[in-house]
Amino acid sequence: MEKYKEYKELFEKYINNEYFIKDPHRLYEPIQYTLSVGGKRLRPILCLMGCKLFDGDIYDAMPAAIATEVFHNFTLVHDDIMDNSPLRRGQPTVFKKWNHNIAILSGDVMFAKAYEYVAKIENRDLKPILNVFTDTAIKVCEGQQYDLDFETQREVTIDEYINMIHLKTAVLLGASLKIGAIIAGANEEQTKKIYDFGINMGYVFQLQDDYLDLFADTGKFGKKIGADIYSGKKTFLYLKALELMGEIKKKQFQSYYTDLSFLQPEKINKIKRLFEDLNIKRHTIDMMNKYHNKSLEYLNTISDCNIEIKEELISLLGSMLNRDT
Amino acid sequence: MEKYKEYKELFEKYINNEYFIKDPHRLYEPIQYTLSVGGKRLRPILCLMGCKLFDGDIYDAMPAAIATEVFHNFTLVHDDIMDNSPLRRGQPTVFKKWNHNIAILSGDVMFAKAYEYVAKIENRDLKPILNVFTDTAIKVCEGQQYDLDFETQREVTIDEYINMIHLKTAVLLGASLKIGAIIAGANEEQTKKIYDFGINMGYVFQLQDDYLDLFADTGKFGKKIGADIYSGKKTFLYLKALELMGEIKKKQFQSYYTDLSFLQPEKINKIKRLFEDLNIKRHTIDMMNKYHNKSLEYLNTISDCNIEIKEELISLLGSMLNRDT
Repeated sequence: MEKYKEYKELFEKYINNEYFIKDPHRLYEPIQYTLSVGGKRLRPILCLMGCKLFDGDIYDAMPAAIATEVFHNFTLVHDDIMDNSPLRRGQPTVFKKWNHNIAILSGDVMFAKAYEYVAKIENRDLKPILNVFTDTAIKVCEGQQYDLDFETQREVTIDEYINMIHLKTAVLLGASLKIGAIIAGANEEQTKKIYDFGINMGYVFQLQDDYLDLFADTGKFGKKIGADIYSGKKTFLYLKALELMGEIKKKQFQSYYTDLSFLQPEKINKIKRLFEDLNIKRHTIDMMNKYHNKSLEYLNTISDCNIEIKEELISLLGSMLNRDT
Repeated sequence: MEKYKEYKELFEKYINNEYFIKDPHRLYEPIQYTLSVGGKRLRPILCLMGCKLFDGDIYDAMPAAIATEVFHNFTLVHDDIMDNSPLRRGQPTVFKKWNHNIAILSGDVMFAKAYEYVAKIENRDLKPILNVFTDTAIKVCEGQQYDLDFETQREVTIDEYINMIHLKTAVLLGASLKIGAIIAGANEEQTKKIYDFGINMGYVFQLQDDYLDLFADTGKFGKKIGADIYSGKKTFLYLKALELMGEIKKKQFQSYYTDLSFLQPEKINKIKRLFEDLNIKRHTIDMMNKYHNKSLEYLNTISDCNIEIKEELISLLGSMLNRDT
């Protein structure tokens, strides 16, 4: 993961050079706060790698990379309001540190700022990238809506769940890679393949997110363990568990899991034990492996590309099966 | 106002042909609701007029016109959450009819949809229009932030107030006209002049909005009379009244006006009488006239343009001094 580290450092240097604070301060401070807390920088790095994979100049992809990161952080700021999440990357979320109105409006301006970076893209690539970016933004909102809908929807199938994470998480990973590829001048077949690689990587990434919510190492994990259970979120773990239960036990468990009036820490432990009894860890890992392999297949059909970056993308994909933060 | 009516009907036909509802329904229904409740359609009509003024084809400006309207409605959906407004155009606001989360997320997707229409603009004009649109979006957020800041800021000058309405309201009117003008192929001097015409029109428009909050005909007005007073909003009326008071009376009035624990209907009447004693109606009208004349000056420096539309813009500007909804 040498290249990832190198690109991350480079990206950090660039984004830290972008000073976001100006008047009115209460609008811009949360942007600086959100973007400087850090995180994995996965989307901008994918954008740079998508560009380099097709032998483009990564500096040409830098504005687009910033756009993906600013956009992603905008969605986090708004999602944290909707999900009532107190912590993000181990720090208070914007609506907790400031208030709801500031979080709504700072998020809005971040969304606009993301387009400010898109607008810096060269004329030749502007229209296709604007289309990919906007289409992605719409899908991410749709994904978040399904996620919210699932809270009150009693029956959710695993297919519906996969569609939700497709929209909420995977499309932005695919789009980040694709935008980088477009900037490098990749052809349509190539940009489609790298997009599908990213989509399947997104599934692995989100499944691991669900997994980490309950099974992460508390020392390294920035979020509260069991937050999904606290909010009654219908994760893959939960849906898979339901699938494996008999009808009667399923009904009982559905009621227990979604009853938010019963929120003691014992609930987390009880559910964790139940998931362990049902071998949910294994089932989740199997599902991740399935998408991991599918992702790899897409990447392997791309022949005319930079081998070093291709290998780095393979490592990155592999690391998603084992990441702990 | 024949042309306004004609363009409004044409625009309504276009926007009504755009069916926004799809899955997930809870995300898209509020968009259809918001866009079909209607309103003045001022921004898209300005966009069409900005195009026709420089002899462009208004059908070329239609996607941009829709973008301005969708963007404007997005800001209303979010502003209504922040201002806790129950009604908009006589109908329940989105967060009241649905809930806060739906209003945040539907607003977000409207913002993205606005860019979807921007992306339909021809390649030649895409970059300059994307820049104007994004710059405007950022400024509108800044204006809303100042507006929120003013709630807790004890001293607000009339200059600060004008800067706030510049950002929150005027720039989008100016930008709508300018975008239309760019599509028509107007030169830089012309687009700058029509922009400044729109900016000053925006001041008149917003001052009239403040005026109508208290002095509107309740039968025709879609909003609750005195809503600004109920929320302690520092309107031009309030700031002008403070300017005209002695120090002691000013301090008392500031405390009375901003004390939101005291919210009986008598408060509205008492403040209305005070404003009448101070001749605030007259002062507000004078201020509107000042910007009306400035706006007219900008328009009159544009020579090489469509006279019919120029006259229509003069009528429209004039009507803002007398509008009652």
